[in-house]
Amino acid sequence: MTDLIQQIAFIKEIDKLKYIKRKTKLFHSDRCENDAEHSWHLAMMVIVLAEHSNEKIDILKVLKMVLIHDIVEIDSGDIFMFDTKKSHDNTAEELKAAERIFGLLPKEQAKDLIEIWLEFEKGKTNEAKFAKAMDRFEPILQNVSNNGGTWKEYHVPKEKVLDKTKSINNGSKSIWDYSLNEIEKLFKTI
Amino acid sequence: MTDLIQQIAFIKEIDKLKYIKRKTKLFHSDRCENDAEHSWHLAMMVIVLAEHSNEKIDILKVLKMVLIHDIVEIDSGDIFMFDTKKSHDNTAEELKAAERIFGLLPKEQAKDLIEIWLEFEKGKTNEAKFAKAMDRFEPILQNVSNNGGTWKEYHVPKEKVLDKTKSINNGSKSIWDYSLNEIEKLFKTI
Repeated sequence: MTDLIQQIAFIKEIDKLKYIKRKTKLFHSDRCENDAEHSWHLAMMVIVLAEHSNEKIDILKVLKMVLIHDIVEIDSGDIFMFDTKKSHDNTAEELKAAERIFGLLPKEQAKDLIEIWLEFEKGKTNEAKFAKAMDRFEPILQNVSNNGGTWKEYHVPKEKVLDKTKSINNGSKSIWDYSLNEIEKLFKTI
Repeated sequence: MTDLIQQIAFIKEIDKLKYIKRKTKLFHSDRCENDAEHSWHLAMMVIVLAEHSNEKIDILKVLKMVLIHDIVEIDSGDIFMFDTKKSHDNTAEELKAAERIFGLLPKEQAKDLIEIWLEFEKGKTNEAKFAKAMDRFEPILQNVSNNGGTWKEYHVPKEKVLDKTKSINNGSKSIWDYSLNEIEKLFKTI
């Protein structure tokens, strides 16, 4: 019963992810996406696109990664992909957030989820590469649907977009080929 | 490549789930939850609470169930748990929606996801029982945090709440014990 009480405290706490707004807008929309919606969408993308992974992956682990990957932002806030001042690396602030929030869970479970989150952040394993590819791919689809979206809004040049998204290739060559083509096409029109 | 194009059409289409509002409000809030946020929260609950399932379950399948369970509402709309006019059963309208939306995917994938959705709807397997328990449990936590929430707002008596939520017991006895206690406590104060 103690475990259940701790788990419920965590479930209540993570409701706050629904208030963390991203810069990126929904498809064909000017409404910002929040982190909970974003995490759900990535999870659906994992289910549907897993066959395009370059390497064999443990889908359950990738799902866990994308479902929890932004939970630290409850404390540390969303960092825009093209923010030049704030680091996107696994910062001390994010690690502290992970320890506080996952730390609400029973000890073993907290440890497991922090490990999965760190594995995602490091981006070295096949699962992390594919999860990160999904995290980069969703805003491409969104920005293309919004005629340039945040790229246009924040005057991000094509080279910078390509530089920040090319790691999709590490997770899925076919999804990167598709992305590259979409980015090239878009930048001819904006 | 044809498969990828179809899969991306599906990924774009399901963005609409973010606009489908539920009656239930976020925790300690008067802001309605949308179906995408709700589905993400259920997925997190599955990850964290799976050990409380009465029976051994395939967690990956349960995750798929909760992530896709409301996608049909893009066409058919959200039905309030205590709506007395509209049926909550797997209606012809919902099946049509499932065929249209999942039907955007390559044939085999569409078939798989429709099957998983139907398995959830029927609620007979261990996985479906646990997924449905999560779907019933989240609004209990939310309504308790909101001093009665939608139950108070729509004058739903305790007996009706218990009648609509008691199936949690089929998925998890310990979560049902916790829920029952929370509902009893709450109705003494509202």
